[in-house]
Amino acid sequence: MTDLHESVDDPALTSMTLLNELAGRFPEAVSFSAGRPFEGFYDVANLSQHLATFRRHLEEDKGLSGEQVRRTFFQYGRTKGFIHELIARQLEVDEGLTVDPESIVVTTGCQEAMLLLLRALVRDPRDVILAATPNYVGFIGAARVAGAPVRSVREHDGGIDLEDLERQIRAARREGLRPRACYVVPDFANPSGATMSLVDRIALLQLAEREQIFVIEDNPYTLFRGSAPQLPMLKALDEQHQVIHLGSFAKSAFAGARVGYVIADQTVTSDGARPEPPMLLADHLAKLKSMVTLNTSTVAQAVIGGYLLENGCSLKRATAREAEVYRQNLATMLGSLRSVFEPVAGLPGDVSWNTPEGGMFVVLTLPFPADDAMLEYSASRFGVLWTPMHHFYGGTGGFHQARLSFSVLTPEQIALGVERLGALVQDQRAKQPVVAGRA
Amino acid sequence: MTDLHESVDDPALTSMTLLNELAGRFPEAVSFSAGRPFEGFYDVANLSQHLATFRRHLEEDKGLSGEQVRRTFFQYGRTKGFIHELIARQLEVDEGLTVDPESIVVTTGCQEAMLLLLRALVRDPRDVILAATPNYVGFIGAARVAGAPVRSVREHDGGIDLEDLERQIRAARREGLRPRACYVVPDFANPSGATMSLVDRIALLQLAEREQIFVIEDNPYTLFRGSAPQLPMLKALDEQHQVIHLGSFAKSAFAGARVGYVIADQTVTSDGARPEPPMLLADHLAKLKSMVTLNTSTVAQAVIGGYLLENGCSLKRATAREAEVYRQNLATMLGSLRSVFEPVAGLPGDVSWNTPEGGMFVVLTLPFPADDAMLEYSASRFGVLWTPMHHFYGGTGGFHQARLSFSVLTPEQIALGVERLGALVQDQRAKQPVVAGRA
Repeated sequence: MTDLHESVDDPALTSMTLLNELAGRFPEAVSFSAGRPFEGFYDVANLSQHLATFRRHLEEDKGLSGEQVRRTFFQYGRTKGFIHELIARQLEVDEGLTVDPESIVVTTGCQEAMLLLLRALVRDPRDVILAATPNYVGFIGAARVAGAPVRSVREHDGGIDLEDLERQIRAARREGLRPRACYVVPDFANPSGATMSLVDRIALLQLAEREQIFVIEDNPYTLFRGSAPQLPMLKALDEQHQVIHLGSFAKSAFAGARVGYVIADQTVTSDGARPEPPMLLADHLAKLKSMVTLNTSTVAQAVIGGYLLENGCSLKRATAREAEVYRQNLATMLGSLRSVFEPVAGLPGDVSWNTPEGGMFVVLTLPFPADDAMLEYSASRFGVLWTPMHHFYGGTGGFHQARLSFSVLTPEQIALGVERLGALVQDQRAKQPVVAGRA
Repeated sequence: MTDLHESVDDPALTSMTLLNELAGRFPEAVSFSAGRPFEGFYDVANLSQHLATFRRHLEEDKGLSGEQVRRTFFQYGRTKGFIHELIARQLEVDEGLTVDPESIVVTTGCQEAMLLLLRALVRDPRDVILAATPNYVGFIGAARVAGAPVRSVREHDGGIDLEDLERQIRAARREGLRPRACYVVPDFANPSGATMSLVDRIALLQLAEREQIFVIEDNPYTLFRGSAPQLPMLKALDEQHQVIHLGSFAKSAFAGARVGYVIADQTVTSDGARPEPPMLLADHLAKLKSMVTLNTSTVAQAVIGGYLLENGCSLKRATAREAEVYRQNLATMLGSLRSVFEPVAGLPGDVSWNTPEGGMFVVLTLPFPADDAMLEYSASRFGVLWTPMHHFYGGTGGFHQARLSFSVLTPEQIALGVERLGALVQDQRAKQPVVAGRA
């Protein structure tokens, strides 16, 4: 058989396959490509504890009977989930953000939330989604499955380029298209590490209101801000319900749980043949969710619920140790890059990198193509893996860039990995004299 | 805002909303509409036990290190899941079916498996899916989200009508369409209760091979066969890889877990610009899965894995008590229907029903329309809820039929509910004289 839907041929997936294959072939390589969270504090025994905590919460705080508790744990349940109130409390505690728990849909990871949202927003072939580029591959993947066209908007060190966003919206309208929403990661974006200023956050919301588009905010790295000051999430600045917020527990509690959520407090009025009372967008997303996965796994929700309860519904408190690991690793990464690649006084440097204040990623710009062939060469000859940035540009840029992730490494591994990158650069310099300014 | 994708307006969902609302308004009503599994044997303490069992399995049977065990429980993992070998063993033990574990994709419930499969198979607007009708609403919902057109094939008491299937395939081809697959529930189908004979199973596979279409087999009720003999699953008869098998733990372990799977052992050869070695359809589905939910929740998989291990990987053994409950409830249901509705000697009966040998559903045919208005009347005046069958026909049939589900009721509730149905029928007879033969 052949003839499968085009979404099975995602080039970013092919790249992930190559990375996994290289990691398997070169187990001694330092891997700057693994973006998964730090795993040093995980303890399997905690899972049963979280379940017990959540059970006590149902019995004591919510006053549920034994039968109701059993039903909560074992049966099909509320499609929007049952830890929505705890999530609302966490947003209040950590972000000072007040949301109606009814506007929250608990999803099978943030990935499902993206899919539901894209499926709902793209009604016909005129509808397009905008996204700051380089993109998170999961968003592009969800768009492929939903058949949602995505147009790129430029990004700089301060996040999405608002002038380009306005330009893209107008260009799309001139083509008879309807821009529905723009996807941004305001804090320490994956893969770029870029963070938006407060001024730009406000300007983005004003632009969205003026142009009548939604802002899709995805903010999984805001907890890991190093020493940077906390900026309000876009949802916390959102007075006109322009922002649809995506949440994740993958980087805080744990990724395997597959628990995320979407806040969709927009009111949807019926336009169809069957008039219906206004409904929250969240309830429409829940209808779609019932056709994708039904409710989010009850055991997974209960584990996350217990984790939240044990930490006073503060993810900041829950992830304080991880945040310190990432802060130290970022400092080590930037220090190592300086010591290996800092230009000699009077000579131009041919390797550069950005300097995010938090998150899990740094982007390195090289004086030679950072493609899959170079990655394989880097792994086999120098024992260091990284992620070619061009995959995050859908093939339109980033050809000389590498994403360096430092979330699962020790400071020693980071220093060693950067030394190996230095050796790769020297090897390439020797082969092909660098033209100043090429990078 | 308005303008959402049409899939948010599924009429079957609106009907489910009405049923939930009526159940809330009339809590004393006997509900024949709840299709969820029997919950009398659930025990929250079992969850931690299952986790511990699975952990021991990883440590002792699989020889994983502490770090590997932690990673299995907490991190992003293998997209195809990690309980595939246990599932393969269960199929061997209970069904005598040997499958390559690599052809299994563990999914977020069977619902996600349906979505992945429909997304993969429908490549362009020529592609259509066939389905025995009345349909399981979840399949139709997944098709709506995937944008996959579904054409109805007639069903009789012996399952799908093979002549009509052949007719529909040819009709579609004449219209320039490409029928890709046909969806069937061979044992005790939801909603009809129909079961296919062995002869028809073999004939269906021959037809599928001749016509080069896939058979999508969904078989969640096969464990609950009352006193009926066990027939081989279609997958067990499948010598030509025509069958894609969907599996569920919702009716065996528990529905809230959201763990299901798909067996897709078909070989896919590349037809695109980038030649690739042949791959299992399972691996293509896994690529799609990575854009929908990534891996299936690790905690949920571990709980199901522990449950399987504690029962020697036999779901028959694990669900022996539930099977006995359903067997008794079915007998009570059929007995009550006979005693309330059996025609008086010499007079034609105006109420009829089918007599499945297992499963969770019986279909009642009434001498008046069994629509949403009648359901509300039935709930408010007579204290009995049921599911209008016409929702399962996409509005093309079943207008006088009700699905009666008996999975969560006691025998006393079943007898009482059927008495109440009898009162509803008497009430309608009194209002509107029955024309003989109308039903």
